[in-house]
Amino acid sequence: MFDLEESPGNIMDMTEGNSLHKSKHDTGSVGNTDDGQKYDSGGVSYDFSCIYSKDLLPAEDGEEATKHFLQELVNILMAHVSKSIKRSSKVLDFHHPHQLKEGLEGFNLELSDQPENLEQILVDCRDTLKYGVKTGHPRFFNQLSTGLDIIGLAGEWLTSTANTNMFTYEISPVFVLMEEVVLRKMHTIIGWKEEDGDGIFCPGGSMSNLYSVLLARFHLFPAVKTHGMSAIPHLALFTSAHSHYSIKKAAAVLGIGSENVVLIRCDERGKMLPSELNARINEAKIKGLVPFYVNATAGTTVYGAFDPLNEIADISEHHGLWMHVDHSRAHSVTWNPHKMMCVPLQCSAILVKKKGLLQECNQLCAEYLFQPDKHYDVSYDTGDKSIQCGRHVDIFKLWLMWKAKKKSQLAHPLQGSEGFEAQVNHCLENSEYLYYKLKRRTDFQLVFKGKVAPKIKAKMMEEGFAMISYQPLEDKVNFFRCVFSNPATQREDIDFLLDEIVRLGSEL
Amino acid sequence: MFDLEESPGNIMDMTEGNSLHKSKHDTGSVGNTDDGQKYDSGGVSYDFSCIYSKDLLPAEDGEEATKHFLQELVNILMAHVSKSIKRSSKVLDFHHPHQLKEGLEGFNLELSDQPENLEQILVDCRDTLKYGVKTGHPRFFNQLSTGLDIIGLAGEWLTSTANTNMFTYEISPVFVLMEEVVLRKMHTIIGWKEEDGDGIFCPGGSMSNLYSVLLARFHLFPAVKTHGMSAIPHLALFTSAHSHYSIKKAAAVLGIGSENVVLIRCDERGKMLPSELNARINEAKIKGLVPFYVNATAGTTVYGAFDPLNEIADISEHHGLWMHVDHSRAHSVTWNPHKMMCVPLQCSAILVKKKGLLQECNQLCAEYLFQPDKHYDVSYDTGDKSIQCGRHVDIFKLWLMWKAKKKSQLAHPLQGSEGFEAQVNHCLENSEYLYYKLKRRTDFQLVFKGKVAPKIKAKMMEEGFAMISYQPLEDKVNFFRCVFSNPATQREDIDFLLDEIVRLGSEL
Repeated sequence: MFDLEESPGNIMDMTEGNSLHKSKHDTGSVGNTDDGQKYDSGGVSYDFSCIYSKDLLPAEDGEEATKHFLQELVNILMAHVSKSIKRSSKVLDFHHPHQLKEGLEGFNLELSDQPENLEQILVDCRDTLKYGVKTGHPRFFNQLSTGLDIIGLAGEWLTSTANTNMFTYEISPVFVLMEEVVLRKMHTIIGWKEEDGDGIFCPGGSMSNLYSVLLARFHLFPAVKTHGMSAIPHLALFTSAHSHYSIKKAAAVLGIGSENVVLIRCDERGKMLPSELNARINEAKIKGLVPFYVNATAGTTVYGAFDPLNEIADISEHHGLWMHVDHSRAHSVTWNPHKMMCVPLQCSAILVKKKGLLQECNQLCAEYLFQPDKHYDVSYDTGDKSIQCGRHVDIFKLWLMWKAKKKSQLAHPLQGSEGFEAQVNHCLENSEYLYYKLKRRTDFQLVFKGKVAPKIKAKMMEEGFAMISYQPLEDKVNFFRCVFSNPATQREDIDFLLDEIVRLGSEL
Repeated sequence: MFDLEESPGNIMDMTEGNSLHKSKHDTGSVGNTDDGQKYDSGGVSYDFSCIYSKDLLPAEDGEEATKHFLQELVNILMAHVSKSIKRSSKVLDFHHPHQLKEGLEGFNLELSDQPENLEQILVDCRDTLKYGVKTGHPRFFNQLSTGLDIIGLAGEWLTSTANTNMFTYEISPVFVLMEEVVLRKMHTIIGWKEEDGDGIFCPGGSMSNLYSVLLARFHLFPAVKTHGMSAIPHLALFTSAHSHYSIKKAAAVLGIGSENVVLIRCDERGKMLPSELNARINEAKIKGLVPFYVNATAGTTVYGAFDPLNEIADISEHHGLWMHVDHSRAHSVTWNPHKMMCVPLQCSAILVKKKGLLQECNQLCAEYLFQPDKHYDVSYDTGDKSIQCGRHVDIFKLWLMWKAKKKSQLAHPLQGSEGFEAQVNHCLENSEYLYYKLKRRTDFQLVFKGKVAPKIKAKMMEEGFAMISYQPLEDKVNFFRCVFSNPATQREDIDFLLDEIVRLGSEL
């Protein structure tokens, strides 16, 4: 266990000098921040060493202890947020699995049979953050989501405190309506008509993609819901060779079979070739398969390539296929605000052009949950639209961020994050800047055969000052892939990254 | 919009008298708590009316504003928690969808094109809680999860702040290892051997059940992953007529077809009849279907009935079927700590007896995420086991609660919540007490034909002092279903509930 007696200071006090705590037992500090920085908490603090979780609410006299405990936690979290944003701090403090499992400086992952006091619980919280990865750090370029939006964070804290579920209006009246408001806004942005459109937030982009394949299959062959795949023809679906693996996964899960996903060849920039798509659809038909779905990718995983959406839409319409993509001519769209919009994880929506289809495809009308004889408009019991039963409230943080940001053309991309548009533009400008710098550097011109990128990344993780991803693709050996979604990242961080790669590479 | 000038007091100050805020602009209050209670914030407060989300971190000088903003939010959340627990406050302040959409006392769900200042954002947060349902209230008896565990809440706040994903060890080292530790503990409790067992946390019980059907199908017919359902025989699966609808939903989603789910008759207490199970399996075989899976329910949704697990296990073994349930002889188990263990939503695990099967069934080895040439033990990149890609961190709150509670036989069920065991016992004792009281009351002996329960529930929601669920089942008309998972609920709340039902019923 961490020896608290040896701690040189107090956990950061948010008020920087003003005491947050009425002294119950003036026993001094709870612990120090992980870099040993001292914060003045006014010399008094609440004694967590002799109280336990049972002393918190709903215990009869638990209110004061609860307040102090949550306040101390917030101090730890706030210190983490402040530190995460600082370029002088490490992105990660890397340890191998066996090292973390053995226990580091008293941080013990194992569960014993005795309850820990709240002092130890707070130390555990601090250590969990210490040995984790600071995904909000300006030099975290790794996949997939980076940055920490404070309004989004506030939204998540409130959501956890509300501790409810999205399945019915009766237990989530506000959140259910917020989902409706935000989905309608998203439909407008895609370009669907006011009267069109349906959708649901679900746990991640892969699940959204699974929903799209599920809906397309049901739309064309509604018998599949009750009779199963044996009652319908052999299906084929189409996606680019550079698309996300979740389409294949969906086909495997849904009983279509991953080999019935036809991967369409791309050009050298990673865009699907429409002529290839058309040829492969015809080929599948000749083989006796029934093409029913095409996924066009607007931003591939590795190159960030955009498939030619209109040409693909023409082909889909010609063959009567369901088109899934981020595009107004599509039948369905996966939209992940937890990516470039920097909404805290997780936040993903499946948007469906045809109203009522989600309900028709997924409803089973369980009468113990979705009673039709309630005293309010039960069309707001949206739970039966989903393939889940309970559903996490992912909407509030997005709604709150949208309220706080709004559309704004005014803010300069580098001056702030007002408006999602400015925020996304800032990310795009970062990637242009990276491209500009790379073109001008001679030390980045060659991709050596071998394992350069993994070795540089390994050294980078061990040193912990930046983090980036890599992978091979087709004929290319491992190369770096840089992700920008963090508003905190500035040009100096990109310069730092390039210099680090060169420095670490030259030491190989 | 809510008129802030007319607010009679300040949002609750957690320190009750000590100022949390250095005065930036001493403009007074942000708003009042929703019941008009006044809290002394020392007469000074931070001015949120002229700062916006762009003034928070990562803005250059955003640290102070961020601290004050999050502090004010925590004050609002803490006031909500304190109030939720109080019997004198309402469980809900009911409004119909159209009323909430029209905007109540300035609470506006619509998104305009101008950014709101942080004062408005805080007011929105307060109003969201005000018009929501207090699921942690001791008199919330509605399905499904109730109560608010403070340690679990702390865990969720930390998880949101860490803002990362479970797909690889590199971005979630601590959380990935915690998942391993907790899953191992769960396997031991089920009664599986140390070397057995695998599992993954996923978004809810319905998804866990879907995983179990998916794994059973793959285990018996691995060709289904690539070739699809057309390459394997017609399947049939079995579950009790009283089981959760997610089994049927899983069959529909996976392409098996909901009509191939055979519902087995139950006895009058809701337990599956083993002789019926055996007969229906044989019947399915005669029809040319291939039985492959049986779901035994340990605690049905409505009656809370436990199927006879050993007899079902015998039959399953005899026919070579995959058995899914909460039982050591099962092949897989769905375990939802977000139910009776009172872990904040969502927290659900699918546990699988056969090691490696989850990986084999779901992996697609996307090399842009799960590179095999990383510098650490890549078996900890657990993301490819799931049907999702990104995966929300649901493990930390459970791990932290487990650390804080532990197994403890000592605490009396009514004296505190030390130990999950004591907590669950308290819920069971509440239900026994309800049964005891009902038996002694003459005014509860009849279930009238008609719509009594919906009408009483409607009146109860409109008054807002308690909340309970109802449904019909088979030959029974609508009846109340009372859920206990909230440690805050005491006998007096049960007495209150019964009196309320009688009072509201007598007014019909």
